[in-house]
Amino acid sequence: MTRLDKQIAFLNEADKLKSVLRATTLADASRAENSAEHSWHLTLYALVLADQAGPDVDIDRVIKMLILHDLVEIDAGDTPIFENVDAAEVAAKEEAAADRIFGLLPADIASALRPIWEEFEAALTPTAQFAKALDRFQPPMQNLASGGGSWRAYNVTQDTIAARVGTKIERGAPGLWAYARKRIAAFFASAS
Amino acid sequence: MTRLDKQIAFLNEADKLKSVLRATTLADASRAENSAEHSWHLTLYALVLADQAGPDVDIDRVIKMLILHDLVEIDAGDTPIFENVDAAEVAAKEEAAADRIFGLLPADIASALRPIWEEFEAALTPTAQFAKALDRFQPPMQNLASGGGSWRAYNVTQDTIAARVGTKIERGAPGLWAYARKRIAAFFASAS
Repeated sequence: MTRLDKQIAFLNEADKLKSVLRATTLADASRAENSAEHSWHLTLYALVLADQAGPDVDIDRVIKMLILHDLVEIDAGDTPIFENVDAAEVAAKEEAAADRIFGLLPADIASALRPIWEEFEAALTPTAQFAKALDRFQPPMQNLASGGGSWRAYNVTQDTIAARVGTKIERGAPGLWAYARKRIAAFFASAS
Repeated sequence: MTRLDKQIAFLNEADKLKSVLRATTLADASRAENSAEHSWHLTLYALVLADQAGPDVDIDRVIKMLILHDLVEIDAGDTPIFENVDAAEVAAKEEAAADRIFGLLPADIASALRPIWEEFEAALTPTAQFAKALDRFQPPMQNLASGGGSWRAYNVTQDTIAARVGTKIERGAPGLWAYARKRIAAFFASAS
């Protein structure tokens, strides 16, 4: 295989992310969202909500993280936020997936891209924490638009949302959690 | 509406791009590709094929162009590459769509993002020409993977592909056209 053959083999494999379905629906509730279009939507969130990032956040790198962040789901599947899972088991599956999928690339490109995904997963830098915040912030925006979405499907309470979603949004983008919390409270008040 | 309300209104409107269908299918031919997941795939093409860009190409800006490039299709629809259309009419529809859709944003964000889309559309800079080349290069890669895809649907010849697709790939990424042309020729030879 030539260098370009390997690059295209990786890009063809990545196409499978368009068939990985998430618990969240489209804003019009017509169908489940897939992880590829979700990833695109998040890159647009990063462009449009860059003013919510702290001074140490590198938005260009946030966007790269969001492009790559769900590729491992091709092998490991999507883990719905409100499902109770063995986090260590999911992490091990995702590491194995990263080995296989980034392993399709020429070694120099894999060495450039995999650390971006690892940084996102570790969530220790302001850049990764902002990217994670957006990844947690978009599903409630979809649920508010669709009239409940995965909150209804998983029958969750505001406390569960605050614990599973709110803490990570607040850590990376406190202004977005202040906004989401208020809208979520209003939604639950009108739905009860 | 607060500033954040406007940002979210734009992001909710953008969700509709997930329901705009293209002539190209997924690599496994299971269904038509939508313009949101296509946009994500292109950002990944930019990350992985950055070594095919000339020295004056700004890859971070290429990625921003590709995130934004199809938003106008929410109003104007997708224009299949092999359909014969009135280019001036399509351009006018897309400008009106850009007015409406970018107009949902706070003015300072619209003023930052719309020029990125305009630069892509005008295709006069090396950065925009590389972004356009990727937008033309991905559909033949999907068609090769799926066994013909939109080439079969539109019954096109290699000459038509070279004229409609090849010229724009070659202008922005000559190495990718050399690669695609060879694979397309082999596909048509084996299919005839």
